[in-house]
Amino acid sequence: MDLIASLQCEDQPGIVHAMTSAVLACGGNIIENQQFTDPTTNSFVMRTRFETSQNLDGATKALKDGLSKFNPNLRIRPTEQKPRVLVMVTKESHCLRDLLYLVELGELRIEIPLVISNREELKSLVESHGIKFKYLPVKADSKQDQENEVSKLIDELNIDFVVLARYMQILSKQFCEKLPGKIINIHHSFLPGFKGAKPYHQAHDRGVKIIGASAHFVTNDLDEGPIIEQDVAHVTHIATPDELIAIGRDIERRVLSKAVKYFADDKIFIVGKRTVVFS
Amino acid sequence: MDLIASLQCEDQPGIVHAMTSAVLACGGNIIENQQFTDPTTNSFVMRTRFETSQNLDGATKALKDGLSKFNPNLRIRPTEQKPRVLVMVTKESHCLRDLLYLVELGELRIEIPLVISNREELKSLVESHGIKFKYLPVKADSKQDQENEVSKLIDELNIDFVVLARYMQILSKQFCEKLPGKIINIHHSFLPGFKGAKPYHQAHDRGVKIIGASAHFVTNDLDEGPIIEQDVAHVTHIATPDELIAIGRDIERRVLSKAVKYFADDKIFIVGKRTVVFS
Amino acid sequence: MDLIASLQCEDQPGIVHAMTSAVLACGGNIIENQQFTDPTTNSFVMRTRFETSQNLDGATKALKDGLSKFNPNLRIRPTEQKPRVLVMVTKESHCLRDLLYLVELGELRIEIPLVISNREELKSLVESHGIKFKYLPVKADSKQDQENEVSKLIDELNIDFVVLARYMQILSKQFCEKLPGKIINIHHSFLPGFKGAKPYHQAHDRGVKIIGASAHFVTNDLDEGPIIEQDVAHVTHIATPDELIAIGRDIERRVLSKAVKYFADDKIFIVGKRTVVFS
Amino acid sequence: MDLIASLQCEDQPGIVHAMTSAVLACGGNIIENQQFTDPTTNSFVMRTRFETSQNLDGATKALKDGLSKFNPNLRIRPTEQKPRVLVMVTKESHCLRDLLYLVELGELRIEIPLVISNREELKSLVESHGIKFKYLPVKADSKQDQENEVSKLIDELNIDFVVLARYMQILSKQFCEKLPGKIINIHHSFLPGFKGAKPYHQAHDRGVKIIGASAHFVTNDLDEGPIIEQDVAHVTHIATPDELIAIGRDIERRVLSKAVKYFADDKIFIVGKRTVVFS
Repeated sequence: MDLIASLQCEDQPGIVHAMTSAVLACGGNIIENQQFTDPTTNSFVMRTRFETSQNLDGATKALKDGLSKFNPNLRIRPTEQKPRVLVMVTKESHCLRDLLYLVELGELRIEIPLVISNREELKSLVESHGIKFKYLPVKADSKQDQENEVSKLIDELNIDFVVLARYMQILSKQFCEKLPGKIINIHHSFLPGFKGAKPYHQAHDRGVKIIGASAHFVTNDLDEGPIIEQDVAHVTHIATPDELIAIGRDIERRVLSKAVKYFADDKIFIVGKRTVVFS
Repeated sequence: MDLIASLQCEDQPGIVHAMTSAVLACGGNIIENQQFTDPTTNSFVMRTRFETSQNLDGATKALKDGLSKFNPNLRIRPTEQKPRVLVMVTKESHCLRDLLYLVELGELRIEIPLVISNREELKSLVESHGIKFKYLPVKADSKQDQENEVSKLIDELNIDFVVLARYMQILSKQFCEKLPGKIINIHHSFLPGFKGAKPYHQAHDRGVKIIGASAHFVTNDLDEGPIIEQDVAHVTHIATPDELIAIGRDIERRVLSKAVKYFADDKIFIVGKRTVVFS
Repeated sequence: MDLIASLQCEDQPGIVHAMTSAVLACGGNIIENQQFTDPTTNSFVMRTRFETSQNLDGATKALKDGLSKFNPNLRIRPTEQKPRVLVMVTKESHCLRDLLYLVELGELRIEIPLVISNREELKSLVESHGIKFKYLPVKADSKQDQENEVSKLIDELNIDFVVLARYMQILSKQFCEKLPGKIINIHHSFLPGFKGAKPYHQAHDRGVKIIGASAHFVTNDLDEGPIIEQDVAHVTHIATPDELIAIGRDIERRVLSKAVKYFADDKIFIVGKRTVVFS
Repeated sequence: MDLIASLQCEDQPGIVHAMTSAVLACGGNIIENQQFTDPTTNSFVMRTRFETSQNLDGATKALKDGLSKFNPNLRIRPTEQKPRVLVMVTKESHCLRDLLYLVELGELRIEIPLVISNREELKSLVESHGIKFKYLPVKADSKQDQENEVSKLIDELNIDFVVLARYMQILSKQFCEKLPGKIINIHHSFLPGFKGAKPYHQAHDRGVKIIGASAHFVTNDLDEGPIIEQDVAHVTHIATPDELIAIGRDIERRVLSKAVKYFADDKIFIVGKRTVVFS
């Protein structure tokens, strides 16, 4: 069986040795191993992919026994098991399309049992890919009800994580707190940054030569949670605001898809305010 | 004679035709021609390189006569004439070294008659390249005197523009106002931006995946004047703050050199808060 | 009326002036103007977008009259008129999907009246976008017939240019000769290049750190016609051949879409063995 | 003491465990650990940086004892120990300058006891940095003698590896065989590749939109040995051959410096025809 073990704990001598001992103890052979010690938080993170003749329960027991003294946050899963992802959208389709395309191509190993939107525009696109679409509008006085409904569906469908693929509603603090490190968002990023409405128009007026996008975790205590992935494109004075928006769409979809792929492969760890991403 | 004409005025029908007529009128042949109409400010800018059998005065008269009705900001210079550049530094050498290297290689067609610094560390580096170095320290009560001295040297040496190659002093409003669109600065840029001291350490703590630099004009009424050039590098969680600083140095020197090259080739126009750069 | 004039001829003094005179003569105002003189071939190319109160015929006559002495290759079209594009595919969908997506989004201003394939796999994808799909298989002895059928459809449907979106058949010399500068192809590109089958596996064995793609015109006398657009991605030793192929797909679709966009905007000129692309 | 252990051997179960056991056995704590199994050659490579209270000999013995059954290629060195590098040049300075600059800045942790050239142009540049310069010309009948002299100097100066920083002579098969995996070279790379003289002129004629450079190991049985690092820059039709050469210089120096940095940090392993680079 091909398994991925993800471990996070305080840095101490002997962890790597304990992990490799535990893998040997269950007859395993390490295929991939990546580790990092974050000096700021003194966190140690490790991702080990290994093959073993034991089943999931046996391997899990062996690793838990071998590593218990480090009191780690430890997670073991079959490599082949696809995470179940809830995608939330509003009306822009570019990020959603990219996810659907990569899933169909087999490049992105996730299952999408449901797409939720606060609008109806993307219903037919979603359904044409054989995926269920749920329209859950948000009104001033119904936000709490809508989020409760989303939470219920997350539980019922055994969702592993949530992707906001241009979902243009702000999630409540309560909702975010229920899913720490489990919600990925995408937004534009500029040098310098811009506050307020119509950021691409502001970027145009300011004559930026680069526009970018950031995929990050959603948290309730930060404007923007730990960054997962960023990318940019060079632009010139010729580009109109609409052209900047189009270029932005292209960056957004690529950056979000990359972040989702890392997460689906258990390659992201949160340490303090930042992420470790094993690429 | 090979000449570069740079023209800026309000957009009106017939300007391109008037320019090409004027070039024909002095027996010229257009070698390069670039133009742009900025929709926000309704500015028209044009850079025309042409060969003519006339001398500079003759060609200048022909163009001024032909274009006067558009009331343009018009500048004509021999292509071979190198702008005279004052470089100001503090103690970091990376941007200065790149400028010196590109000048020696013939890639950057400028003359550097003087380097001014508020510190003495880079004296021997500058003098080893056969360039004069002037130490002009800045103290709390001598800033005005120092800037007056710089201004005097700019006049005496017929300086065309000033490059702040990691000059770690803030220039006074008065100084900037004397040289509008004539001072180029370089600084780091991040997604998101950071205020305050030790920006690379902040960027590390925040886990950015991209660090960048911007070259821009210095103005007195903006934190940051019109942007000329920007670039970035991808970084990962592995990079320490010191490594981020080193990567930042590499981007800074490339971005500043590129901006200086554009300016030396008369390829930059300021329209409103942004630049048109003919690359 | 908003018009685009594309001009190509031997470089001679006075062309720009003649063009701007002709535009003035039909009451036009230049909105965009780009030009380039290729020193190797002494070709002059120019793309002028202008507004005029005259209709297409009137403006065309004015420009032809004004420019006839330069014996130019001159083309004038309404900016709003979308080129009609035949897309040819085999069974890989990534490039086709990107084109369809960008057309639906309004970013790519072309019409696709037909997709032709030598296989049937992509039929339902094409038809789900409301576009006709024609299955035209190629066998050893039927290639000539198949190409004749394609040619007939190109004529019937008033096709302006052909995009090979991963069409895995080599077009005959005769077919290419009928459509000079009208067929765009995409293929992978490596540093160094690789001959023969399974190029991504070869690239993996050779340990390349960069993989790329090139969009180019198809010609009959060159392995590879004039290059329109190229891009690359950085890869490491970790990537398997299949992962390289996936990364390659991402670059291919972006590069091909960009090339098609340039062509649809009349921004590409062929001079000798290379292209001028006004971006 | 801070040590770096580099290990390469056939892939077998238990290697990581044996390494971590051996590190524990000498009271060490792992600071960095990177590993990779190359599926094509079934090679296992590992780089482990650790702190130990033992000295170099003690730690070396512990690791050799613990790992001997895997018959590894094992190397242990103090992290602080700078490799001694011979730089060979001809007359182009850009790569050499970048190396000198990064060494002086402390970013590149190598010692350069000598620069050898087959020409005299760069003598004063080298000596102005306090480094010895040796002029060793190559003539048709003296190549063997010159290489013998270089080999003698490599031995006398305890050189760890050789960097060809635009050294425009081909090294003999015999010379290369003496230093397998110890000579790094830089050269331009294009898409597509070009044979013969004046490659940048060929690239211009062919209208490439990207130019690049590759740093690689020199071997005697390949046109080009295992690639260490590659990068590219985008170019347009506007760039003249001389401008392409200038852009190429910028890429070359960055790519070579990066490769030298990886090598100086023991981050490169050769597996078959390719490299594993731990970045």
